[in-house]
Amino acid sequence: MNYRKNFRLLGFVLLIESFFLIFPIITALVFHEEFLPFLITLCITLFVGLVLNATPVKTQTLQAKDGFFIVTFSWLVMALFGAIPFVLSSHGIPSYIDAFFETVSGFTTTGITILSDPSTLSKGCLFWRALTQWMGGMGVLVLMLAIVPLANDNSMHVVRAEMAGPSIDKIVPRTRDMAIWMYCIYIGLTVMELTCLMISGVPFFDALLHTFTTAATGGFSTHAESVAFFQNPATQWVFTVFMFLFGVNFNVFFLLILRKITKALKNEELWVYIGLVLASSFFIAFNVLSRYDNFSDSIRESTFQVGSVMTTTGFSVTDSGAWPVFIRMLLLFLMIFGACAGSTGGAVKLSRLIILIKYVISSFCQFAHPREVIAVKQDSKKLSNEVIRGTAVFVITYFLLIIIGAFFIAFEGYDFEYSLTVSISAIGDNGIGFGDVVSTGYVGGFSVFNKLFISFLMLAGRLEVFPVVVLLLPATYRRK
Amino acid sequence: MNYRKNFRLLGFVLLIESFFLIFPIITALVFHEEFLPFLITLCITLFVGLVLNATPVKTQTLQAKDGFFIVTFSWLVMALFGAIPFVLSSHGIPSYIDAFFETVSGFTTTGITILSDPSTLSKGCLFWRALTQWMGGMGVLVLMLAIVPLANDNSMHVVRAEMAGPSIDKIVPRTRDMAIWMYCIYIGLTVMELTCLMISGVPFFDALLHTFTTAATGGFSTHAESVAFFQNPATQWVFTVFMFLFGVNFNVFFLLILRKITKALKNEELWVYIGLVLASSFFIAFNVLSRYDNFSDSIRESTFQVGSVMTTTGFSVTDSGAWPVFIRMLLLFLMIFGACAGSTGGAVKLSRLIILIKYVISSFCQFAHPREVIAVKQDSKKLSNEVIRGTAVFVITYFLLIIIGAFFIAFEGYDFEYSLTVSISAIGDNGIGFGDVVSTGYVGGFSVFNKLFISFLMLAGRLEVFPVVVLLLPATYRRK
Repeated sequence: MNYRKNFRLLGFVLLIESFFLIFPIITALVFHEEFLPFLITLCITLFVGLVLNATPVKTQTLQAKDGFFIVTFSWLVMALFGAIPFVLSSHGIPSYIDAFFETVSGFTTTGITILSDPSTLSKGCLFWRALTQWMGGMGVLVLMLAIVPLANDNSMHVVRAEMAGPSIDKIVPRTRDMAIWMYCIYIGLTVMELTCLMISGVPFFDALLHTFTTAATGGFSTHAESVAFFQNPATQWVFTVFMFLFGVNFNVFFLLILRKITKALKNEELWVYIGLVLASSFFIAFNVLSRYDNFSDSIRESTFQVGSVMTTTGFSVTDSGAWPVFIRMLLLFLMIFGACAGSTGGAVKLSRLIILIKYVISSFCQFAHPREVIAVKQDSKKLSNEVIRGTAVFVITYFLLIIIGAFFIAFEGYDFEYSLTVSISAIGDNGIGFGDVVSTGYVGGFSVFNKLFISFLMLAGRLEVFPVVVLLLPATYRRK
Repeated sequence: MNYRKNFRLLGFVLLIESFFLIFPIITALVFHEEFLPFLITLCITLFVGLVLNATPVKTQTLQAKDGFFIVTFSWLVMALFGAIPFVLSSHGIPSYIDAFFETVSGFTTTGITILSDPSTLSKGCLFWRALTQWMGGMGVLVLMLAIVPLANDNSMHVVRAEMAGPSIDKIVPRTRDMAIWMYCIYIGLTVMELTCLMISGVPFFDALLHTFTTAATGGFSTHAESVAFFQNPATQWVFTVFMFLFGVNFNVFFLLILRKITKALKNEELWVYIGLVLASSFFIAFNVLSRYDNFSDSIRESTFQVGSVMTTTGFSVTDSGAWPVFIRMLLLFLMIFGACAGSTGGAVKLSRLIILIKYVISSFCQFAHPREVIAVKQDSKKLSNEVIRGTAVFVITYFLLIIIGAFFIAFEGYDFEYSLTVSISAIGDNGIGFGDVVSTGYVGGFSVFNKLFISFLMLAGRLEVFPVVVLLLPATYRRK
């Protein structure tokens, strides 16, 4: 492993983080709050970043495992430093473990929180909390590549690990151009949502923070009631529409900007996504109709909930725990598989589900006709064995981690449904659970061990499992 | 597909079934009960069997899909005919759907029941109900092969589909010899358990019927309290020990008989099985110690429950639903994966779990060292890509079926844990569930749709998923 180069890149990541810390300082100044916690953190982060970034580098070559190392540790140090302001603030989070948990939940865009009422935080802390989600949504390393691309082609390793999905297409030849385009689309959609929310009547500060967390499909809210705080149906529809948009593969938007509309609409996953969204929303709306005054309320709530769960945002407007079990089960299924690859959403991703189902069906056809050769195709292209293997290994590891997480949570005495859904929610970066508690994703009562383990699950989920698990295997450090 | 040959073989299966119907007639005569229900069924089965078996056959060749057809339909017709005596008996099961469900649960060795109190059945019906499990444990087609082996080598297709596990070794060259050996071991162990139970004080009739259902890892009991009816600790230990023995790969016993002890002990799965059993039993015993008077009670209950769940027998002695959630979760994990391949147990099988974990770890090593070639080995032999693919496809399909089943059950208003565990229990041929009800596996309140769907799950689980699913795909019937 090329540790020197890796440390240098970690330093650069911290420099980016220190830059973002300027914004909560401005917020604190505007609201006449204490700004020192952020300034101190900025200075620490800047200092450590500069020191690491000055590491003398012998060789530029990076292997696959260097990519895994950079990605995992970038996210870890970002959370370690990002937690400091919460501890230093007088209206913050006193315990460092809690602050770390909250920051991991932020950067990984999960939205599980240890705060029973986030509105007790200072405005500066609320801003920083929402901003961590926005930064985590597109990924800090993608941003780094947009600024300083790596010398060789290994940059794709990093993008693959940070961007979601089984196969990231290179639409533009240079990784740097792709990273810039992704950020442009991200910022563009963010501005659009902010405008729509303000038109629907949400005040600027709330609108901005909720835009950050919708864009990242994160789900942190500034209110204990989550977005149920906003009573206006129009506001709720704005959230729903933008959650869905941020769940779409950003390549589709890119192709639409290039006016390659036919190519954009050829994306199989997009149609499965639209189909599942519509089918589930109407199915739920009809089945809970009796609980609402009219169909328009029912479809608004159900579409919102489907969007919140599928895109792994994790906002809630209604006590969905009161809905019938089979609807919670349907939502859980959507929660496990999530939205499109290449979006800001988490979870397994629909394209992996599609690949698995095609793989299973083609295998069964193969059993019935052993002498034929049956290939698995997606978007009219044959899938390589590596992609299929990667998908199968991903899903198996993912489910094993869910089982381990659920067991640890249950060990503290929580009920079956809650333990399972919080584990699914954490690794899927979703931030919602059913059962004992918990449409708002509050987990303040967990033990330190579980807070750390769930932080691990959230990181593993956000980084698509592979980098984190590879680094845990002794075989990775074996020399030939 | 060679339908003529298939029909002929189906006829033979019915002839075997009609032979087994002699035993409940004897039982009915001994207890001075009505024997006509069984005699009528015997005549019907014999007649249909003879007609089908007389189908003129043009060619002996069987393809892979013929194997799937024979296996699936053999089990279906056995259940269809096997249900008749329950409906005809005055102390039986009045509804044919219920009787069919009970018979499927019997033949597939599941043990889920629509009877809240089985002791209301006549002795003849109880005998037949237990005997279906014993027949299902080793498989009727294996028995058929022991009597009339198929002309060509396709017989292995049938054995593979009926015997459990990802890879069945041919220890003896001829399939027929293997089938005979398997039945000898099965009968030998059955006689041993019967003797031990009687020595521990269980009356002959009860001992025989519970031996049938232990041998098959089935789990039907003649008492509403299941085996908690027997208060003697020694009896309970006999059950525990024999459940574990019937969960061992029969090849191990065969090698022991041949005195190839070193080879028998080289079986990796066996050691994982022993390790998991001991670890889980002690873990649970310590964690529920406060609920019992002493450690000896606690370890007896926990070992029994681990055995019942892991071997997919499904007996219960204690209200395990009252145990803490994390223990139920551990039991659920053991329930999903089950015991050894090549045993009479159901579920996924430990060897598949071992293959998957090795596959996942080797894949991660491969990601870290992309230029090396890393093979997956079991019992010192390299596993072929076909075995790995088969295992992955099996597990993915298995989990998808569990999710669908749980959704259907939840749709009727059952709670989350119950819906999920009954679905897992049905496809794993286990017969136990947690939550609302149900250590005794009583599901009498289900709708007709769910009774049929769960019957489908039980069959799919017993026949290791592939044959049943392949027959459901239109592509199977496509001609080239």
